Amino acid sequence: MSRWGETTGRTTVDNAQLALLLEVSGTPKPGNVDRHRDLDDLRFEHLIAGAVGARSGLQCAAAGDSVGAAFEQAVSGMSNQQGGNTQFGCLLLLVPLIKAAATQSLTPDGVRSVVDATTVEDAVDFYRAFEHVDVAVDEPPADADALDVRRGSEVAATLRERGLSLYDIMQLSADPDDRLGDGNAREWVSGFERTFEAADSLVADEGPVGDRTARVFLELLADQPDTLIAINHGEATARSVSERAAAVDGDLAAAERLAEEFVDEGYNPGTTADITAAALFVALERGLEV
Amino acid sequence: MSRWGETTGRTTVDNAQLALLLEVSGTPKPGNVDRHRDLDDLRFEHLIAGAVGARSGLQCAAAGDSVGAAFEQAVSGMSNQQGGNTQFGCLLLLVPLIKAAATQSLTPDGVRSVVDATTVEDAVDFYRAFEHVDVAVDEPPADADALDVRRGSEVAATLRERGLSLYDIMQLSADPDDRLGDGNAREWVSGFERTFEAADSLVADEGPVGDRTARVFLELLADQPDTLIAINHGEATARSVSERAAAVDGDLAAAERLAEEFVDEGYNPGTTADITAAALFVALERGLEV
Repeated sequence: MSRWGETTGRTTVDNAQLALLLEVSGTPKPGNVDRHRDLDDLRFEHLIAGAVGARSGLQCAAAGDSVGAAFEQAVSGMSNQQGGNTQFGCLLLLVPLIKAAATQSLTPDGVRSVVDATTVEDAVDFYRAFEHVDVAVDEPPADADALDVRRGSEVAATLRERGLSLYDIMQLSADPDDRLGDGNAREWVSGFERTFEAADSLVADEGPVGDRTARVFLELLADQPDTLIAINHGEATARSVSERAAAVDGDLAAAERLAEEFVDEGYNPGTTADITAAALFVALERGLEV
Repeated sequence: MSRWGETTGRTTVDNAQLALLLEVSGTPKPGNVDRHRDLDDLRFEHLIAGAVGARSGLQCAAAGDSVGAAFEQAVSGMSNQQGGNTQFGCLLLLVPLIKAAATQSLTPDGVRSVVDATTVEDAVDFYRAFEHVDVAVDEPPADADALDVRRGSEVAATLRERGLSLYDIMQLSADPDDRLGDGNAREWVSGFERTFEAADSLVADEGPVGDRTARVFLELLADQPDTLIAINHGEATARSVSERAAAVDGDLAAAERLAEEFVDEGYNPGTTADITAAALFVALERGLEV
């Protein structure tokens, strides 16, 4: 069903679950829950439980279920804890990557084929997943109110009427008019460009995986403004948060101070954490040792 | 295959894996790896990877495989990380508890039936598990050299010749002559008495699961000397470590100081952590919410 890692003895599903767990364990990841920090209503144990609950959906993806069905199953399982949305965005990236890995095509082209092949029913399942958990989302583009994810499975009729696949939905979110766009959707439409780059950084780096995770998170945050920060605090703040991450320049002691500041200021770069988790999965599949 | 938790939506296998993850996350657990502390060669991420790798064996237990076969599979999977022995003792307790839970009999009598029913082949598999990983063990009793676990699967012939079941082996280890005996083996022969008591404490306690885990670990350590400490440092030290845990009296701030001391002094109460993980599993099955 899932292939076994060539070097680590772990299955693809094991690696996906381990990626979720290593992401939350990596520290310091300024502004996010990590091994050393909780947020007010979101604690480390919620993310641990989310990673356990999501596993059945990850297994569905490896077994060949559709992206939408596997994703909805993963989100449903993830939601069986009291912290709310823990890993919705991570799972949106992991599911197509798992499907690519399960068919020995974990490359930008391989995952591009997976997302290209998504259907209207995948989009319907994706919208249904929003009913399991509250997800922070931006206002839809002015002409796309009918596709507001907050309307959940009510949107199904519109999707079918317009023949919109899940890939189409991601394209709409990746580059909406003049706004920043959704960082996870951009991964979907770019062959997971930042994910694969970050995976290369993780593999090339040295030292404990927790430190590598922190450094790659800082690189990603410095590189592009975080979508979740932009949604919650505006694009100017998102850009300034990224500049502050860039100023740390990979120094984990300086990042510890930034972590205290971001938690105090309420800045939570959740989309950057999603891409970090996806990159950890790719790196584990490519032999990153723990 | 596994039943679903009545209140949490998690399967028995999910709860067993989550118990392993919550055990290592609970802090402070003086002397052990926890969310805030690594040991020299054993880091948090190794235990996380151990919990992921062990899952296939936990699944075997829930699906009805024999105790020995499921245990060996779990230990084999657990060993796919670079920290060495992470959860051997936890798995020895979890496997029979999972089998009891999977047949709706997670009670002292139910798990007693599971361990009573173990066979010579379970004992053979148990010995085989020692070949996957280095486990700290005491010298065997003078008349039991032929059963030294360090001899691994070489012991199979002796086991078959003498007709010793895994339960018989645990009885030999629970109360060897005049020595303290193995704390995990005592669970096997006592209907998992301390495990069920600790599970009750976890459920009755209040606050985040990480804090409850720390408090129940301290209670267990105060209550009885730790087997791993006795093996590595002698029984007198094991008793003194337990007295120092008792003096903390559940105060987590005092326990933080004790955690620093025990790490500096090299005291690692691993068997107490095993029972804590087993208790977390029982508590999760009984509805402990995360």
